[in-house]
Amino acid sequence: MRITIIGSGNVATHLAAAFKNAGHRLVQVYSQDIQNAALLAYHMKARPIDDLQQIDPETDLFVISIKDDAIVAVVKQLAGYKKLTVHTSGATDLAELAELIPEAGVFYPLQTFSKTKEVDFWSVPLCIEGVDETTTRDLEELARTISNNVYRISSAQRKTLHLAAVFACNFPNYLYDVARRLLQENKMGFELLRPLILETAQKVQDALPNAVQTGPAVRNDEITMTAHLQMLAGQPDLKILYELLSQGIIKNKNAEHAG
Amino acid sequence: MRITIIGSGNVATHLAAAFKNAGHRLVQVYSQDIQNAALLAYHMKARPIDDLQQIDPETDLFVISIKDDAIVAVVKQLAGYKKLTVHTSGATDLAELAELIPEAGVFYPLQTFSKTKEVDFWSVPLCIEGVDETTTRDLEELARTISNNVYRISSAQRKTLHLAAVFACNFPNYLYDVARRLLQENKMGFELLRPLILETAQKVQDALPNAVQTGPAVRNDEITMTAHLQMLAGQPDLKILYELLSQGIIKNKNAEHAG
Repeated sequence: MRITIIGSGNVATHLAAAFKNAGHRLVQVYSQDIQNAALLAYHMKARPIDDLQQIDPETDLFVISIKDDAIVAVVKQLAGYKKLTVHTSGATDLAELAELIPEAGVFYPLQTFSKTKEVDFWSVPLCIEGVDETTTRDLEELARTISNNVYRISSAQRKTLHLAAVFACNFPNYLYDVARRLLQENKMGFELLRPLILETAQKVQDALPNAVQTGPAVRNDEITMTAHLQMLAGQPDLKILYELLSQGIIKNKNAEHAG
Repeated sequence: MRITIIGSGNVATHLAAAFKNAGHRLVQVYSQDIQNAALLAYHMKARPIDDLQQIDPETDLFVISIKDDAIVAVVKQLAGYKKLTVHTSGATDLAELAELIPEAGVFYPLQTFSKTKEVDFWSVPLCIEGVDETTTRDLEELARTISNNVYRISSAQRKTLHLAAVFACNFPNYLYDVARRLLQENKMGFELLRPLILETAQKVQDALPNAVQTGPAVRNDEITMTAHLQMLAGQPDLKILYELLSQGIIKNKNAEHAG
């Protein structure tokens, strides 16, 4: 397929590389910043542009991977080419594209990407949605050339998925940082916690998290929880967080026993 | 070394296996439940006992790996043998042992263990503390026969470490479960999130968590955060949790920029 990439951020970069590796042809890479466009385009043997007036109409697919609030303005400029057009956003409804373009879809990779860290794209869940069955099938076919985990996900489901990803990725990362700071205050390094963090994530690769919950809350170990809350007395935000999360764990456990 | 294991839980099981693999001799395994003692003792070629009166004094080390509130009672029964005695608890002060026994120490493995999942013990951080320099060195030497990550950690530091581990392990696992339930309510499976969870933990193996924070809060993407809070309107506990964690991320970011 001939593919044009609109954007040069983390998602655009990893998607472009996956398409290239699968043998697709990258036509152009657009970015407001020509240097960013050039950097990605160079690796993809595509042409960099920083002006949507320079779009090459000889393409099969526009992949729009830019900030959510900029998507509609770009789609308006691309609508005239009447090509298959997808966005990669977790939070943007397909309807926002479908209003402007007949062949519209979503191509949402559910992963956290950094430009400096390679990702095995074959394992990345790709969430696909199309305006009609034909578009959906075309996108599924394309998705299967770069990932083994392709799912049909509606716009409503995708919004929930995006929210769930915040709980499963962004918030745990913040808690890693809370732990890091607690250690730092007591002259210990973050490396002490790295094996524990990795094992915690590895455990739920085969099991469900409620089945492998550990710690004082699930044991209802009130002595330890009281001691921990005392240690957090000087950090009221963390104290409330500890209480809230522990209460959640206890509630979960009681619900399971009742159920 | 000749080692006697008091306890047959997850920590006792993994520690015993690591000692055995390193060529140490397991003398006896004690558990209140003789079947549990027998199961572990069988694999370790040790003798199972369910009565501390049956302790074989021909041992070099007692490893006490039982519930925190049962440790002191057991130590009282072992004190007469005057052997090197350690506990494996994150939350119990060394002083509680040292009051009762001259050669006392702590041997705390910072990892989450399940009986059914093997762990590469060489990567497990082992936190060591002894009543004096000789005891500490003996324990360090022993620790290095089973782990490449041996640390001297005081009782005060260990308490912080235990608290930090709750934030780095138990709470993230609970958040995985929150995400699982959000998906389940919308007919999606947890497998969608597994690659994301693993990558989030893998990212901080080389980087620090504050350097790789992603998501709407760190971007200050108020539109997405407002949408997420609206989706959680029917689940007030999760709504408060979302607000608290997002505020924490924003506060962290502002502190970095100020600093």
